[in-house]
Amino acid sequence: MQPFVRNLWYLAAWANEVPAGGMLSRKLLGTARVIFQRGDGQWAMLADRCPHRFAPLSRGRRVGDTIRCGYHGLGFDSTGACVHNSFAGGGIPQGAAVESLPIVERHGGLWFWPGDPSKADPAGIPDFTFLEGSPNVFTRLLMDAHYELLTDNLMDLSHAEFLHVESFGTNGSLLNHGKQTVETDDSGAIWNKWDMDAVDPPGWAQPMLQPGEEVDQWIHMRWHAPAAMALSIGLARSATGRRQLVVPAMLDPHILTPETHSTTHYFFWHQATEDARAMAEQVFRREDEPMIRAAFEAMDGVEFWDLKPLILPSDNAALRARRRLMKLRADEDAAPTAA
Amino acid sequence: MQPFVRNLWYLAAWANEVPAGGMLSRKLLGTARVIFQRGDGQWAMLADRCPHRFAPLSRGRRVGDTIRCGYHGLGFDSTGACVHNSFAGGGIPQGAAVESLPIVERHGGLWFWPGDPSKADPAGIPDFTFLEGSPNVFTRLLMDAHYELLTDNLMDLSHAEFLHVESFGTNGSLLNHGKQTVETDDSGAIWNKWDMDAVDPPGWAQPMLQPGEEVDQWIHMRWHAPAAMALSIGLARSATGRRQLVVPAMLDPHILTPETHSTTHYFFWHQATEDARAMAEQVFRREDEPMIRAAFEAMDGVEFWDLKPLILPSDNAALRARRRLMKLRADEDAAPTAA
Amino acid sequence: MQPFVRNLWYLAAWANEVPAGGMLSRKLLGTARVIFQRGDGQWAMLADRCPHRFAPLSRGRRVGDTIRCGYHGLGFDSTGACVHNSFAGGGIPQGAAVESLPIVERHGGLWFWPGDPSKADPAGIPDFTFLEGSPNVFTRLLMDAHYELLTDNLMDLSHAEFLHVESFGTNGSLLNHGKQTVETDDSGAIWNKWDMDAVDPPGWAQPMLQPGEEVDQWIHMRWHAPAAMALSIGLARSATGRRQLVVPAMLDPHILTPETHSTTHYFFWHQATEDARAMAEQVFRREDEPMIRAAFEAMDGVEFWDLKPLILPSDNAALRARRRLMKLRADEDAAPTAA
Repeated sequence: MQPFVRNLWYLAAWANEVPAGGMLSRKLLGTARVIFQRGDGQWAMLADRCPHRFAPLSRGRRVGDTIRCGYHGLGFDSTGACVHNSFAGGGIPQGAAVESLPIVERHGGLWFWPGDPSKADPAGIPDFTFLEGSPNVFTRLLMDAHYELLTDNLMDLSHAEFLHVESFGTNGSLLNHGKQTVETDDSGAIWNKWDMDAVDPPGWAQPMLQPGEEVDQWIHMRWHAPAAMALSIGLARSATGRRQLVVPAMLDPHILTPETHSTTHYFFWHQATEDARAMAEQVFRREDEPMIRAAFEAMDGVEFWDLKPLILPSDNAALRARRRLMKLRADEDAAPTAA
Repeated sequence: MQPFVRNLWYLAAWANEVPAGGMLSRKLLGTARVIFQRGDGQWAMLADRCPHRFAPLSRGRRVGDTIRCGYHGLGFDSTGACVHNSFAGGGIPQGAAVESLPIVERHGGLWFWPGDPSKADPAGIPDFTFLEGSPNVFTRLLMDAHYELLTDNLMDLSHAEFLHVESFGTNGSLLNHGKQTVETDDSGAIWNKWDMDAVDPPGWAQPMLQPGEEVDQWIHMRWHAPAAMALSIGLARSATGRRQLVVPAMLDPHILTPETHSTTHYFFWHQATEDARAMAEQVFRREDEPMIRAAFEAMDGVEFWDLKPLILPSDNAALRARRRLMKLRADEDAAPTAA
Repeated sequence: MQPFVRNLWYLAAWANEVPAGGMLSRKLLGTARVIFQRGDGQWAMLADRCPHRFAPLSRGRRVGDTIRCGYHGLGFDSTGACVHNSFAGGGIPQGAAVESLPIVERHGGLWFWPGDPSKADPAGIPDFTFLEGSPNVFTRLLMDAHYELLTDNLMDLSHAEFLHVESFGTNGSLLNHGKQTVETDDSGAIWNKWDMDAVDPPGWAQPMLQPGEEVDQWIHMRWHAPAAMALSIGLARSATGRRQLVVPAMLDPHILTPETHSTTHYFFWHQATEDARAMAEQVFRREDEPMIRAAFEAMDGVEFWDLKPLILPSDNAALRARRRLMKLRADEDAAPTAA
């Protein structure tokens, strides 16, 4: 199993997943962490394991800006330092502390850095400004597959023509008329762009158009390492320079964080309607997840490249993302960090 | 764990388990396979894993004599060759194919050959002609034990005097009067024959006989490697040269195929009555399976011979079958096949 | 994983867990054993695995002072010797036997010796005379954690001030006024004694006292290797030399036996009332077990000392017990026994 790249920002949770005044316990990159917010608004992430007898700190309780272990009462502050011993006159053991990780709130998400803390520059958090102030429901699914298989899925949306044909009313436009462009940009992003010009509209859009009217459609996915993606979808009346939109353009987060080597936190959102919730449930949980999990099981623990995968042109962007991660991993192996 | 012998015919499924026009996915010898029938009646068995992104092909759909992958739409024919790319102008990647295995319908069963295809001669499929045209219900149980433990069970039916005493109304005839003969024949079979002459009838047969009347009983099991067995049971009025049968002689298939090293497909049949179904459920599922599974668990992953099993004369046939498989395994290790 | 110390008496079961005339199957120190009582009152413990085809003997039946295997009928006596072959004229295979372990009834418990039988002196069974003749309910829980974590829990009852504060109505007396004494005695015991003199009474005792009246409280735990503990709790009116008890002093068994390296049989008792049963369920199953299991999971398979645990003064007794076991293990490693 390839180790995770550590000197990167990963999404730990949506900020609103942490109960006010409380704690959130979450396994991330194979290790249990506890997340909480101080009274001054700063966030903290600690190893979710007391150094005394290894009880999860999240089974304790908050006392001000500290956590008290629920087993024997030691208290830890947001830097991980032990600051309380419940025995009268007990004193604080020298150097007692739990691991603390850099964590930053940005764009409604809590991003943490599992690598060398001295390298943790929040400027490296990918831009998800579009998330701010949205009325959408921020949600999360736990998927039973290695996170790179989910990246493959998202970086090649041609699968929608097969796996989601009923949910999305796809009609072969991408397969028959799609022009694929793979680009990088200065932010370090890899873009996978599908553009379909002057094509028949998908089923769901037909009621909004004249019979026979054609559309320009675009499906653009942006990827930042390790697996933070943003999807941009648009549908415009043809020959309007993409100016007359049939529906407002959509921007969606698709952000992945490994829980373990075989399970993945999948962060996304949906509109705050029952229909949108049910559609997300159908598409992600009933269509994508079983297929990706089945593929993961079929790999039977063998590494992706060792299986000599068949390469199609449509894999271009997904493979470029995989190679970027391989490069980052190789760099970390060559120069191990302090973490 | 000893590897499976590969240059042998194994039963993959009863033919009627495969839906008409559809597919059957089944794990066999540790690997997922997909089975389907072409329009001309020929059968095909492929690796149930697309070489592109490893989705099980059985999650796709049949298109004529091919399977289309349900993830990104590649199509494969019955030889495993990739014959379709759903992208307009996409072309077929050079040499794209999945593994294909020899599979043959014979006697109502689908027999496959996991070894060197050049050695796959259907003449080696053991004779189960008696299955043809039967009104019996062909069925299958998945048993949680290594298949050789089930062979041990079937090749020493003296266990019926203990484990099935209530279901079968056994009365000690085999233990007290059984004459055991172990034979081989030109077909490669090993026979385990129990003959009980001039004995009291088993409980279920008593209503068909005069009080005090004696019977000749025989219980003959035939074994072919790896684990295809046929059971012949007869009950005749004594001193009639086995000509006056009390009930018609019975012939039953007991055919085992490893799903994995710890689970086994057990293929058998029963008469098409509710009583017969309930009896099969009782005997196989509630009496044999828990005992064999418990013994398998008690072995705790240690090889049979390393446990220094106690040898009884009644083990003769079962041990001969084990040694035959050891010889076949040793031969394959000495001269690895192409498979 | 450190091996278990073998030359010690472990509690296998409460005597009344074994059905009269029947058998009890139990996994102990990773191995399945079957326990039964002979007609003359002597107890027997055998490996729960027939040496013929590895069926658990406990799936067979008792015949006098022997067990008949339920698979092929071999019989074994209380020494493990094969004494019966159900085949007429079958004879007993030379030297056929299953492992037999020393087992002794003492104080209502069945104690067994998994090590060198020649060293099994019942004088080494720790004294639990106080169990005899009690109307209490002897019970057992299976806990999902290594047994030494449960020892840690019991040898440092200061955790009651956090984990059981609601169940026990603890009020900080131990933390604020507890005087801890750790002692050994001639029996090989390690004692962890907490004494709180002239303190406010715990919540449950207040109705029995005058407002403002103070109490002397003591909580003494006695440990014998490997993990047989006895708890003595007392509450007396202050300044009476501990003679005027508020409630009768309590003596409770807390005896641990590993089922495996990750699960533990926890033997204890409670009074024969529904309230006492519900309290035991609450404290052991809903408060202790989840915390200890969570700590065990958080250790993630790493050895206790390799995690560099933070040491508090209150750990003194628990650590002394751990070191005693380390010494016993080291001694056994240096001079392996016959077992």
